Amino acid sequence: MSDTSTPQPITDDDVFTAHEGGKLTVETTMPLDSKRALSIAYTPGVAQVSRAIHQDPALHATHTWASRLVVVLSNGTAVLGLGNIGPAASLPVMEGKSALFREFGGLNSIPLVIDTTDVDEIVETMVRLRPSFGAVNLEDVVAPRCFELEQKLIEALDCPVMHDDQHGTAVVVLAALTNATRLTGRTFANTRVVIAGAGAAGIAVTEILLEAGVQDITLTDSRGIIHRGRNDLNDTKARIVEKTNPGNITGGIAEALDGADVFVGVSSSTVPEEAVAGMADDAIIFALSNPDPEVPPNIASRHAAVVATGRSDFPNQINNVLAFPGIFRGALDCGARRITSAMKVAAATAIADVVGDDLRADYIVPSPLDDRVATGVAQAVMHAAHQEAAVATSS
Amino acid sequence: MSDTSTPQPITDDDVFTAHEGGKLTVETTMPLDSKRALSIAYTPGVAQVSRAIHQDPALHATHTWASRLVVVLSNGTAVLGLGNIGPAASLPVMEGKSALFREFGGLNSIPLVIDTTDVDEIVETMVRLRPSFGAVNLEDVVAPRCFELEQKLIEALDCPVMHDDQHGTAVVVLAALTNATRLTGRTFANTRVVIAGAGAAGIAVTEILLEAGVQDITLTDSRGIIHRGRNDLNDTKARIVEKTNPGNITGGIAEALDGADVFVGVSSSTVPEEAVAGMADDAIIFALSNPDPEVPPNIASRHAAVVATGRSDFPNQINNVLAFPGIFRGALDCGARRITSAMKVAAATAIADVVGDDLRADYIVPSPLDDRVATGVAQAVMHAAHQEAAVATSS
Repeated sequence: MSDTSTPQPITDDDVFTAHEGGKLTVETTMPLDSKRALSIAYTPGVAQVSRAIHQDPALHATHTWASRLVVVLSNGTAVLGLGNIGPAASLPVMEGKSALFREFGGLNSIPLVIDTTDVDEIVETMVRLRPSFGAVNLEDVVAPRCFELEQKLIEALDCPVMHDDQHGTAVVVLAALTNATRLTGRTFANTRVVIAGAGAAGIAVTEILLEAGVQDITLTDSRGIIHRGRNDLNDTKARIVEKTNPGNITGGIAEALDGADVFVGVSSSTVPEEAVAGMADDAIIFALSNPDPEVPPNIASRHAAVVATGRSDFPNQINNVLAFPGIFRGALDCGARRITSAMKVAAATAIADVVGDDLRADYIVPSPLDDRVATGVAQAVMHAAHQEAAVATSS
Repeated sequence: MSDTSTPQPITDDDVFTAHEGGKLTVETTMPLDSKRALSIAYTPGVAQVSRAIHQDPALHATHTWASRLVVVLSNGTAVLGLGNIGPAASLPVMEGKSALFREFGGLNSIPLVIDTTDVDEIVETMVRLRPSFGAVNLEDVVAPRCFELEQKLIEALDCPVMHDDQHGTAVVVLAALTNATRLTGRTFANTRVVIAGAGAAGIAVTEILLEAGVQDITLTDSRGIIHRGRNDLNDTKARIVEKTNPGNITGGIAEALDGADVFVGVSSSTVPEEAVAGMADDAIIFALSNPDPEVPPNIASRHAAVVATGRSDFPNQINNVLAFPGIFRGALDCGARRITSAMKVAAATAIADVVGDDLRADYIVPSPLDDRVATGVAQAVMHAAHQEAAVATSS
């Protein structure tokens, strides 16, 4: 599906009218407009199904909607660029996410917004509700608490759990970088990457790039380069610095970018032109902050061979919707209990592969509306899950 | 809508096929098939709505789906006639209930099944998730714990909460009894009622009949008549005995029914023909246990002028679906924070009124498929809510 026409400008009225009453509806899979239908879907018929599940719990997965229902879970502590606006105000975003699961993943999804910032209370709540759903997409929870929360949810729940702000972003960045390095004749092993921002996205991007074979990554935060001489690092940053900044360089963003091949901005900060001017030839700039990229694309283009942003009104939009619908679809379709690193890397490869031979500097990732994406990602995720299962079985 | 044709027999295969993958889907209110739609429903448009709700919390009610979303909540401790089968096995029933909210109430509804029997943990969970929904239909929670749970939920949540096994049943029994007494020339004040069963339904039926003006009600449980000489009564029964059994009669069901005008069975027990034979002339028998009525309808008819059951294959089906969709619809449409006794009595009157001049011994309640029911109930509930608000304002 393509959409090349210039869209009409979007007014406030368009936005608020579209949101009246919310963006989701729950419908029935069969009309209940006859006694017969009522007797099948409700009493007395439903009692047979409940009795059968009671006797054989495996039927819960096949004869309820739960096993393929994705909960979009947030406490609203880090919503888009809005910050900690709380659970009630975050709900439109979560409804939108559930709508994207339907539209692109063909999955049922409900938003649950939770009024607590206590990690253990959130985990406890989801454990209690465990029979109600089949997967959890964690969303818009502030770092560094999101790392602990995701880890504890993964340990407590025997179903796929993914914090999309971390891993959805990471998967799409890896996909984009795969194509950008191919275009500029680099290999991951000889590519120097600088990541501005060490929050949810920055840490996850670092992890997946390391997993994919990038060996030289340097992160910066609001105080400059993250190096082993700093004594102000939280646990997450202290852990990541052990795997990054191999030269243990110090300084600010300009020092970090001096001679670097790739800049990935996930920082909501601004990077001066002088800093990107010092990058290597044929540099790659992913300035992903929304709505204001760290480097405006027109300036970035002066110093880079490939430029991507998070915005839909510039080429190469790095958009999580390329990843999460297919990742959850694939994980649920194959009954995976975890979303593993191998599955995420496979998803990134699948996204990059959709571009294929059409690869150009202004087309390194497919459109979010390209219907080959979710299908390809789901298949890649299932394939990775089967390979891991095979390895686990044979070991 | 009427459905007078003989339905085809329902096979196990019909039932299990209809339940494959569950009975609900979540859909979007607008297709997300263009960049423009994505920009309105998701980023960047959605940020405007979230920001607006953060600034004016009242917009949460108008610009998300939550305020009109009914959670069907159960821990599966008293499911249909199946007993304590647990939350996972109860889910098909809750999905069916959510489907009925859509079909008859035009409301969004999601099932949440919760893996705890601790009242405070259930309340705590719903308080945490409060920004996610607009009402709670409590379902299939075992008595007497259901009374405490409903009460605590009502106190903790500023939204409509109703335990349908109690109040849905009570409302429809009141509707049916309104028409049955009219048909047999009785007034509530001169009608002697015996209720077999002092669980969720029995207690709620007692309360609503007292509210409606019935003055002589006697309950029985598995040990016989509930009277003030018994020392084995739980708190709920000890409270109800103070308002019932005015003659403080003792004995079993036969002694209770001797000369009684009305029998209401919500007990999953069997009542012998000799017992109902002792009832007053033109007796009224509501034998509501499913699938086996306390008295088979053909036997009940020998001794009663009006017979009702809980089954769809006999006349006069006392079915909760006559009540709950319209009650919640009315409560949500008028922004009520509580479902009050007056609203429940008004709902019963509205159900009875649909029968109107067509009243016959085999037509004392409308069909669940009669589309005048939910609308009439919703309007009656709103009217009652407005009257209570007016009284509250003027007092």
